[in-house]
Amino acid sequence: MVEYKSEMLDHVFAAVADPTRRAILATLSRKPATIGEIARPFPVSLNAISKHIKMLERAGLIRRQVVGRKHYCRLEARPLRRATAWLEQQRAFWDVRLDALERHLATTRKR
Amino acid sequence: MVEYKSEMLDHVFAAVADPTRRAILATLSRKPATIGEIARPFPVSLNAISKHIKMLERAGLIRRQVVGRKHYCRLEARPLRRATAWLEQQRAFWDVRLDALERHLATTRKR
Repeated sequence: MVEYKSEMLDHVFAAVADPTRRAILATLSRKPATIGEIARPFPVSLNAISKHIKMLERAGLIRRQVVGRKHYCRLEARPLRRATAWLEQQRAFWDVRLDALERHLATTRKR
Repeated sequence: MVEYKSEMLDHVFAAVADPTRRAILATLSRKPATIGEIARPFPVSLNAISKHIKMLERAGLIRRQVVGRKHYCRLEARPLRRATAWLEQQRAFWDVRLDALERHLATTRKR
């Protein structure tokens, strides 16, 4: 069984539990962007977007690079992979269990 | 692009952002259990576990069945699948982008 750093998962899942932050990640999955570019489609203040970005950075989902006056953000895929792996593991165990149950029912029916 | 019901994802990700709730799901991925059985390994009150279970139910991750006095809980895999699919989609877009970047760099180097 794969072990996952629990605190990292806390931060990643809390970060993606908000629709604005998910939309930011979806934008950055297409290409890196400045904070101004990220904020443009959202009807909220630049300050609010900046807070969301800080939470995504804390979860390790975004890396920021400062070039002159511009802050470029890019997606960091590794934490996404770990979070996916955790969810997948639970689902996989459960599927194995359901398969066993189906086999059991099929055998019982034959008798 | 697959569309996801945003509110459902809010609840699922918020539910799995807590280590106790993740441990409960891991237990239930192995087999259904009563609330008493779920609570046993945790050094917190039955009331605290009950609250965690309610949050997991609200996210659609657990289904409860009352048999006599016992409340049996079992994992509901569908929301896990949807949450995994959302995370996977972001990662996949990003990987495609990285591949394109690598190809671009390789072409530039050849010139």
